[in-house]
Amino acid sequence: CWKMFTVAVCMAFLACLQAQELQGHVSIILLGATGDLAKKYLWQGLFQLYLDEVGKGYSFSFHGAALTSTKQGQELIAKVLESLSCPEDMEPGRCAELKGQFQRLSQYRHLKTNEDYMALSKDIEAQLQHEGLREAGRIFYFSVPPFAYADIARSINSSCRPGPGAWLRVVLEKPFGHDYVSAQQLATELGSFFQEEEMYRVDHYLGKQAVAQILPFRDQNRKALDGLWNRHHVERVEIIMKETVDAEGRTSFYEEYGVIRDVLQNHLTEVLTLVAMELPYNISSSKAVLQHKLQAFQALRGLQKGSAVLGQYQAYSRQVRREQQKPDSFYSLTPTFAGILVHVDNLRWEGVPFILMSGKALDERVGYIRILFRNQAYCAQNEKRWVVDQSQCLPRQIIFYIGHGELGSPAVLVSRNLFRPSLPSKSWKEVEGRPGLHLFGRPISDYYVYSPVREQDAYSVLISHIFHGRKDSFITTENLLASWVFWTPLLDSLAHEVPRLYPGGAENGFLLDFEFSGAQLRFCQQQLEQLVPGPGSAPMPSNFQVLTAKYRESPLISAWPEELISKLADDIEATAVRAVRRFGEFHLALSGGSSPVPLLEQLATGHFGFPWAQTHLWLVDERCVPLWDPESNFQGLQAHLLRYIRVPYYNIHPMPVHLHQRLCAEEDQGAQMYASEISALVTNSSFDLVLLGMGTDGHTASLFPQSPAGLDGTQPVVLTRSPYKPHQRMSLSLPLINRARKVAVLVMGRVKREITMLVSRAGHEPKKWPISGVLPSSGQLVWYMDYEAFLG
Amino acid sequence: CWKMFTVAVCMAFLACLQAQELQGHVSIILLGATGDLAKKYLWQGLFQLYLDEVGKGYSFSFHGAALTSTKQGQELIAKVLESLSCPEDMEPGRCAELKGQFQRLSQYRHLKTNEDYMALSKDIEAQLQHEGLREAGRIFYFSVPPFAYADIARSINSSCRPGPGAWLRVVLEKPFGHDYVSAQQLATELGSFFQEEEMYRVDHYLGKQAVAQILPFRDQNRKALDGLWNRHHVERVEIIMKETVDAEGRTSFYEEYGVIRDVLQNHLTEVLTLVAMELPYNISSSKAVLQHKLQAFQALRGLQKGSAVLGQYQAYSRQVRREQQKPDSFYSLTPTFAGILVHVDNLRWEGVPFILMSGKALDERVGYIRILFRNQAYCAQNEKRWVVDQSQCLPRQIIFYIGHGELGSPAVLVSRNLFRPSLPSKSWKEVEGRPGLHLFGRPISDYYVYSPVREQDAYSVLISHIFHGRKDSFITTENLLASWVFWTPLLDSLAHEVPRLYPGGAENGFLLDFEFSGAQLRFCQQQLEQLVPGPGSAPMPSNFQVLTAKYRESPLISAWPEELISKLADDIEATAVRAVRRFGEFHLALSGGSSPVPLLEQLATGHFGFPWAQTHLWLVDERCVPLWDPESNFQGLQAHLLRYIRVPYYNIHPMPVHLHQRLCAEEDQGAQMYASEISALVTNSSFDLVLLGMGTDGHTASLFPQSPAGLDGTQPVVLTRSPYKPHQRMSLSLPLINRARKVAVLVMGRVKREITMLVSRAGHEPKKWPISGVLPSSGQLVWYMDYEAFLG
Repeated sequence: CWKMFTVAVCMAFLACLQAQELQGHVSIILLGATGDLAKKYLWQGLFQLYLDEVGKGYSFSFHGAALTSTKQGQELIAKVLESLSCPEDMEPGRCAELKGQFQRLSQYRHLKTNEDYMALSKDIEAQLQHEGLREAGRIFYFSVPPFAYADIARSINSSCRPGPGAWLRVVLEKPFGHDYVSAQQLATELGSFFQEEEMYRVDHYLGKQAVAQILPFRDQNRKALDGLWNRHHVERVEIIMKETVDAEGRTSFYEEYGVIRDVLQNHLTEVLTLVAMELPYNISSSKAVLQHKLQAFQALRGLQKGSAVLGQYQAYSRQVRREQQKPDSFYSLTPTFAGILVHVDNLRWEGVPFILMSGKALDERVGYIRILFRNQAYCAQNEKRWVVDQSQCLPRQIIFYIGHGELGSPAVLVSRNLFRPSLPSKSWKEVEGRPGLHLFGRPISDYYVYSPVREQDAYSVLISHIFHGRKDSFITTENLLASWVFWTPLLDSLAHEVPRLYPGGAENGFLLDFEFSGAQLRFCQQQLEQLVPGPGSAPMPSNFQVLTAKYRESPLISAWPEELISKLADDIEATAVRAVRRFGEFHLALSGGSSPVPLLEQLATGHFGFPWAQTHLWLVDERCVPLWDPESNFQGLQAHLLRYIRVPYYNIHPMPVHLHQRLCAEEDQGAQMYASEISALVTNSSFDLVLLGMGTDGHTASLFPQSPAGLDGTQPVVLTRSPYKPHQRMSLSLPLINRARKVAVLVMGRVKREITMLVSRAGHEPKKWPISGVLPSSGQLVWYMDYEAFLG
Repeated sequence: CWKMFTVAVCMAFLACLQAQELQGHVSIILLGATGDLAKKYLWQGLFQLYLDEVGKGYSFSFHGAALTSTKQGQELIAKVLESLSCPEDMEPGRCAELKGQFQRLSQYRHLKTNEDYMALSKDIEAQLQHEGLREAGRIFYFSVPPFAYADIARSINSSCRPGPGAWLRVVLEKPFGHDYVSAQQLATELGSFFQEEEMYRVDHYLGKQAVAQILPFRDQNRKALDGLWNRHHVERVEIIMKETVDAEGRTSFYEEYGVIRDVLQNHLTEVLTLVAMELPYNISSSKAVLQHKLQAFQALRGLQKGSAVLGQYQAYSRQVRREQQKPDSFYSLTPTFAGILVHVDNLRWEGVPFILMSGKALDERVGYIRILFRNQAYCAQNEKRWVVDQSQCLPRQIIFYIGHGELGSPAVLVSRNLFRPSLPSKSWKEVEGRPGLHLFGRPISDYYVYSPVREQDAYSVLISHIFHGRKDSFITTENLLASWVFWTPLLDSLAHEVPRLYPGGAENGFLLDFEFSGAQLRFCQQQLEQLVPGPGSAPMPSNFQVLTAKYRESPLISAWPEELISKLADDIEATAVRAVRRFGEFHLALSGGSSPVPLLEQLATGHFGFPWAQTHLWLVDERCVPLWDPESNFQGLQAHLLRYIRVPYYNIHPMPVHLHQRLCAEEDQGAQMYASEISALVTNSSFDLVLLGMGTDGHTASLFPQSPAGLDGTQPVVLTRSPYKPHQRMSLSLPLINRARKVAVLVMGRVKREITMLVSRAGHEPKKWPISGVLPSSGQLVWYMDYEAFLG
């Protein structure tokens, strides 16, 4: 035992003899032991576990189980066991010895019926008793299709649980459902057999060395990253998995899933949470990590149809037709490429784009997470004089390089003008990149480059984590459902979307480049889409002009919805600018409901010249609920307008429907209070602009047909009743509305067609149709109707 | 008259004969006609004007005036006139002819006393009468030092105005004052002699061809720029003027001014407004342009000491000593280099950094305005496959290249992946850049490059604009004062700042590179400053630790101000996170005044994990003024905290000091209303945290010594009187404060030293020292005092 190496082996051997009895016995049952995944990764992972743990106090038995007959199974397993390999740096003799031990501890068994499971359990118990061992636990690794889960789970739970004091761990492989509902069903079913802490759902990306390094890296470099890891410094985050292969041969699976369910919902989302989550104080606490991860999910902004671009490689539909005997007329809508823009709505990440992208048949195979920092420097010298370590004007980035690509191996890259990172020196070493290699816009020499000391397969990493109970490397039920809550609405909204076709490989050119503006993603090249006959391909509105005409003897503006909203927003801004120029302020009264939402968003994000600081915002009507209730009109204003703009607090005038902690009580005189606020602040009680809608029953504001109040009389603000819930309302009265300098009525959607027609023929009949009573005494009335409301 | 060129000349000649009488006669008087500026630029500019305008209906006379004797002056002028040059493309014969004409129309005259001006006026009138000409107008160009302005202006106004119906234009050269006050004095003085529309203040940068092209470019490319010219798309704007020369030989001027007054306050600020201003509908309306420019000034965020970095080239102080006979111990604080970060606080530009930089003794001579657009694309192909015209992932920028530098001439550059710009083809032509040239990170071939068809000197351009009355190329009084309003506070705050010394030229290395974070600018290299003996060089606080001790038997935390604020902000966040975890919400009551301002700003911008969405904000006390009054505590909260964070509207609880349009009327029961709001929303009326201050008289909240209300009793919220204005206040009472779970008292500054000592020895004497009555009944009290308040 002279050399250090030999010393270590000797000591391990001694420890083995002494410690064998201390920790007890672990039985590992690999279900689907003759399948592809098992043959390729799992047996090797189990052998690696044995190599790592032998002599640390546990004894092991490995049970390869499948439906194959015993004899055939034994032969298959023997072949797999023979092919196992030791780490490169292990002495061949030692390797042969350990491999022999492992083979003796491993056996095949046919496992199908409940009785089989009972028999397995009995055999384990017998062995334990025979060898005088204490049972530590059992691991069941489900490497089987999901439809088999329930039966196996039932059998394990009823007949193969370990004895008292020993743990059970079941390891599950994706897919974990197809959407939120199916994932929940599956989770509920499994939950009836296993405790949450017994389940280990595998996302093998969490075992990739570069991915597994994200949290430790953030932790070990806290000091350097503390001020950097936020919206003030991060320009964007890219989470990318590109493949060159296509789905040929796997289309029956792929047709069911597509790229979002196959890669983004699981792998890329897990990475996203590791980057975005608040860093727990102690990252070795699984509980803290999982909790912070869940919080990251909660901060994700909901995805919209416009958050995604989809593609499909051209050969895909043909492959599906061939592999699944579909007719020539069949075209698939399944995306094989997706780019997604994610926003994390908290103070740390607000406004930072997280770009998720994956696709098949692309120009290269590579996976990486790239954090690009903003350039916040100005360099006073001519750029010719910039030097990489020193110039803050050259790009600064951190890349977790998952593998493949031009580097060919996992790595962590940190720009040299950023900081010299600290990585665990046992497992990561600093390396020099290949000279001449260019990555992410810079020569490789611009980075500190770290590679794993020993490259490890993801499954080996995860099997070790299962054994050590490191639950933070696995997907909890809460985590899984949170991810589906995030992805399902997008998947639903994209179900009938036609993906852009791409030729595949380098041929793709710029076809799949995409860009964002606000929360919208679109392909850079706005070419005419090649229309695939399929559901959802409606004709596009052609280049209609905005139409101006008369309606009820007042000006009518009609257009397609988008142009109509655009025109109305422009008109409101022009009115506001005029009012501020003349009077120094602009009083705008807004209606609630869903029609104004796109208008509010347009005003919030597209109108830079809007004089918000001089604008007073009033409500046309309000539901008698607290202001923070999702049903409150004010809450809609808050969500779609106020959060984006800067109106001084005291220029915002919600209706006082919630005084003295009660709702719209007559005796609180809320309506009178609002009226006197209006009278105090709005000259002559004439709003500069009142925006109204029209209901299918002809109501406007919260003035409903036959309303006893608000249609005439002297009360400027009234309490009313709505036929719809919540019934109690507060509303401006018609007489007050009619004092306005300008009234705009926005009517949108086919559902309004009938009332639009009826009201067009009606006279002044506010009792029947309150909207017909809108007629400003000295102001202007303008109708804004989209084509569907106006033309049907 | 065969060639086009000759035709044009012939026609001009005919037109000349016909039109001479139509428009009348213009007399141009160049004051300081023998000075450097006149010799170098102004005579040539006048000759150019003559060349451009001859034959278009005006007749001219040019009077070179100075204090030199008539004979010597005539000789000097004759020499200058002889050296004038025609445009390159003018036929030599034609040039000689026109030059002869111009020489005959130009004469020297001695101009000093009022009588001289009277004589000049008489001579002009006599000439007009003799030649039967109508007078169109007179231009007086002041190429004289500012101290001479007043006398000359008085003489012109009293004795040399043109006859009725003719215009007067006086042209003024900078400096236009030294700060706001002196600029205003000068403006007032000039205003007593001239109408605003008669004055043309020259900023010769506005005559630089690339600068003069900014607005036309924005106008002609409106369609392409419409969606791009805003904070969603612009990453940064750089406005740069670098010089290689130093101030040698001019230090007597330079010591008075420095780089900010010399270059930034005028040239770079003018450029800034041209980039930032809203584009008027009609850019040929001087009035509209000037008005929009003023609005841009109003949107500029005030500069702070931290908005600037200053440098001084090493030889400067030595040069000053030599040129001004200063002692060896003299060191100048005048900056010869400045980098400034400007923010434009409107919706178009919010958050976009405008970087202004100028300096002497730098590594190159160059001036440019660079608009860099954000990269908002993700390119799906490997970067090796990106192509410049198509890839949206390569940098996109627009550069107005003022001149010099590697290009060597004025130019407009637009990245080819942006759009093909439209420029007026008469005056700008597309050119190919020198192959191999790299500019702003990309080869010149990546840009569309446009150069002027004919390079023109700025003064020639401006003299033509004066003649045509294009006032938008000049600095109006309002514009000038707006600029000084912007710069003066910064100049004041930097008056005693020690600039970083730099060696000059390429030697500067990275010494002058600077970076920003939020609104703060600092040099990238944080080296120990070389301290120059001079005013304001105070010793730096050394590495004190945060001190914890006891004060009035409660915990005391003491530190330097910055660390103290940091610690308090951390503690508040921790308290908030704990409260939200336990109760789902956090109730925070804040005091007004100036002490909490840095705390609020720290919380607003540095605390990403703060649970603002679950936080309720209450006021500890309020002045009886409207909420929007600058004196209102709530207004302080709005300005320093609310505008940065996202607290839902309904979680914000200003004190109701302004009910029924009156202030703190007893009968409005505002105090009772606030108390009942607290009681309804805050469990047990126990705030999670109350932040207090302490006045030099021992007051806290708005509870002053001997206050008849609020020191005890059952009223939770009270109206009180302050000895300071405004006297009326609303305040939480001591009993309510003492119900809090935690009370933090923040005390800062040397001025608090005495009361800190007195109160440390006092018992429970709230009548005498209200602060001594702060003692939470079951909560915790913590004192936060900076060293100056605590140690004196």
